[in-house]
Amino acid sequence: MAEFLTPQSEDFSKWYNEIVLKADLADYSPVRGCMVIKPYGYTLWERIRDELDLRFKETGHVNAYFPLFIPMSFLEKESEHVKGFSPELAVVTHGGGKELDEPLVVRPTSETIIGHMYSKWIQSYRDLPLLINQWANVVRWEMRTRLFLRTTEFLWQERHTAHATEEEAVEETLRMLGVYTDFCVKEAAIPVIPGRKSESEKFAGAVASYTIEAMMKDGKALQSGTSHFLGQNFAKAFDIQYLDEKNKQQLAWTTSWGVSTRMVGAVVMTHGDDQGLVLPPHLAPIQVVIVPIWRKNKERGAVLEAAKQIKERLSKLVRVKLDDREGFSPGWKYNDWEMRGVPLRIEIGPRDIVKQNVMVARRDIPGRDGKMLIPMSEIEGRIPAMLETVQDAIYQKAKDFRDGNVRDVETYDELKEAIQTGFARAWWAGDREDETRVKDETKATVRCIPDEQPGGSGTCVYTGKPATEVAIFGKAY
Amino acid sequence: MAEFLTPQSEDFSKWYNEIVLKADLADYSPVRGCMVIKPYGYTLWERIRDELDLRFKETGHVNAYFPLFIPMSFLEKESEHVKGFSPELAVVTHGGGKELDEPLVVRPTSETIIGHMYSKWIQSYRDLPLLINQWANVVRWEMRTRLFLRTTEFLWQERHTAHATEEEAVEETLRMLGVYTDFCVKEAAIPVIPGRKSESEKFAGAVASYTIEAMMKDGKALQSGTSHFLGQNFAKAFDIQYLDEKNKQQLAWTTSWGVSTRMVGAVVMTHGDDQGLVLPPHLAPIQVVIVPIWRKNKERGAVLEAAKQIKERLSKLVRVKLDDREGFSPGWKYNDWEMRGVPLRIEIGPRDIVKQNVMVARRDIPGRDGKMLIPMSEIEGRIPAMLETVQDAIYQKAKDFRDGNVRDVETYDELKEAIQTGFARAWWAGDREDETRVKDETKATVRCIPDEQPGGSGTCVYTGKPATEVAIFGKAY
Repeated sequence: MAEFLTPQSEDFSKWYNEIVLKADLADYSPVRGCMVIKPYGYTLWERIRDELDLRFKETGHVNAYFPLFIPMSFLEKESEHVKGFSPELAVVTHGGGKELDEPLVVRPTSETIIGHMYSKWIQSYRDLPLLINQWANVVRWEMRTRLFLRTTEFLWQERHTAHATEEEAVEETLRMLGVYTDFCVKEAAIPVIPGRKSESEKFAGAVASYTIEAMMKDGKALQSGTSHFLGQNFAKAFDIQYLDEKNKQQLAWTTSWGVSTRMVGAVVMTHGDDQGLVLPPHLAPIQVVIVPIWRKNKERGAVLEAAKQIKERLSKLVRVKLDDREGFSPGWKYNDWEMRGVPLRIEIGPRDIVKQNVMVARRDIPGRDGKMLIPMSEIEGRIPAMLETVQDAIYQKAKDFRDGNVRDVETYDELKEAIQTGFARAWWAGDREDETRVKDETKATVRCIPDEQPGGSGTCVYTGKPATEVAIFGKAY
Repeated sequence: MAEFLTPQSEDFSKWYNEIVLKADLADYSPVRGCMVIKPYGYTLWERIRDELDLRFKETGHVNAYFPLFIPMSFLEKESEHVKGFSPELAVVTHGGGKELDEPLVVRPTSETIIGHMYSKWIQSYRDLPLLINQWANVVRWEMRTRLFLRTTEFLWQERHTAHATEEEAVEETLRMLGVYTDFCVKEAAIPVIPGRKSESEKFAGAVASYTIEAMMKDGKALQSGTSHFLGQNFAKAFDIQYLDEKNKQQLAWTTSWGVSTRMVGAVVMTHGDDQGLVLPPHLAPIQVVIVPIWRKNKERGAVLEAAKQIKERLSKLVRVKLDDREGFSPGWKYNDWEMRGVPLRIEIGPRDIVKQNVMVARRDIPGRDGKMLIPMSEIEGRIPAMLETVQDAIYQKAKDFRDGNVRDVETYDELKEAIQTGFARAWWAGDREDETRVKDETKATVRCIPDEQPGGSGTCVYTGKPATEVAIFGKAY
């Protein structure tokens, strides 16, 4: 066990903070609530970004860039929107040495400024659908911040689309929730629950919000991505109109959706263990680390040479690093790379060269069980396949954990108990006020009305009213 | 000639604004001095970013991300730095509904906040060199703005490195100027002049600044990238110290350097003509556009099918688009894609299918001279090669233009004349005050002391003093 890490079972929250710092994912900054994303953490984010970007482009979306600043009056055009965001705003009042006539808000999200531009760009049905994404920083003045999970400034992608019909816009909203789900499952190895947000949890200004909810290793929920159907709310506020095929003016229908650097936190808290990070091979900045081993100085040259050759051969296929640092023992290096979550470690020493083998150790299976001798001649074939095996294994492990900690409950007492260690699934027919009361009494919220419903009907766990849907409850980050 | 475009010879500046808007590179925003980068312009920027990022990673640099906000007191730690930037700052005074104790500056550049973090991260010589880059937005409250060339908010990369020795830091500064030069020449097809900035043009806080200067088609200069040797100025201000091998505390040496979205403007103004953009194939979002041609409706199916097949075959090799829009004539489409600067156009009609040929038209050579019949069976071999031909040709054309408009001058009058249409190269031994006088009298500045020097000595064009270096003078954007 890594001595410097608090065990997860002792204090999960402390473990999280420690590993994010120790593994060089991020650091605190001198600016309130803002973090520095360090190279290792940023490379992980680049992998997340590239995988998502590919999926966005495949579904016909293009990237653009809109201003960081938004005139205060823009936010006020959509009443729900400004109500939701005004407590969290950072405001620029001075520019170029002078006080501004109108204060500028540092974007907390870009529906308003993009809505303004869309109203200029969209003239006719031929301009629709308009499917634009931006990768950007946003600022929300959060009271309590946590590295990656909740920071004053964070990085994200926000997609904003405009459509001719309600049907198309709803379809887009759900399609992109599917894209997020696919990314989480296949790349981040996170088994998420897709579903609809309840009334009190939805986005300020949306008609309906959809979410993917993940369960962290402490049983708490992390909202990992959202997709909003905005109806005609923003189209009305920003006058996004188009001439239809019959030459009639129509209001457009819009959507927005985003995934943020919070995803890095989700990866850490879904897979990490008491030794440190466990990174999914598809996203790991380094997939394979090679640690050369020698006792006597005369062995050094041959071992390093063999290690370099292996690196050379693998570097066309996987992201590989050779740890040839001087002054550190192999054991120290093993611990270091385990802590950083590198999926596979290749150990090579003088005897391996003689026998033309290498020892490969899996990060996700501790000790001897995770070690395997592989003939040197087979590394190109075996290593990429082993990475896929690890990817599948950690997904399955996370899914088993999640499934084992979602309880179907029938009474409010059972619900209260279930959310101590995981999620509760229960029939639900409550309204906004009921949600608030449940939250006050249990600290749990409706995470989502999951897409997967049992069918039929039941009795609401809180109000006792007849219910046609189940909801997932949990404490959330 | 494109009817909606002002000819370059009539008003270059107007031509520039028109083509940036018409070609959908960018749009004005409702926020003072901030632009919206539209999808076509942003894709061009993504290509620039990816090419540079690759070169940075190859030279051992890694990406990270630092906060958008900088405490005002940080800027004040380096006196030259704050003097240079304070007139241009955007200041956040309120956050979360309250007035802040200390105002936060929206980063105009990140030397200070990164210096602060480096002082925390760097302990020993083993931590050096530290070579970190970030891709970010920055804000400078500019008085007069121009799309891409000078905007209040812009996107850039800024690299910040720390080294154990002065020699290493200088070497890094110059190596990265070389990387920029290589990028400009090979990818952007822009023949830049690398050199040192004069005293009055250097970065606020630098010991020495280096630049690459490009000549736009109106003969004016555009600073296209800079690389700064910061000496120990920022190390002193932020206490960046390390223990050397003899266990002695030493101050580090730092550098910084950046390239911004201004590069998009450089591409536009280096290659564009009266028909619109001319994009270098290496950076063009669309390298080849296919325009299907039919007169009778019964021809439509076969032509579209053949066009699709060509697209399919080429899409593995180049960035290709099939323009199958209905309701637009082929001629209209030709003009449209010429205006957008797509390097190659493939025309395919019923007769081409019979003869198994396609017509390929080069954007950089107008009319019949740029057209060539190519057997359909050869497109995979010929099209990528033709793109390279175009890339080389537009570089050569830009270089010939540049070379033809740099005049060696011996008198101040000759200098004044030369800078009406291009650059003047002259012996120079002036100081800061002389530079200011030259600027006031001619509107030209010392663009750089070029790396390439004639050797020997001469008489300063302005002061008449003996000079050992020549300088490049020009009016600048």
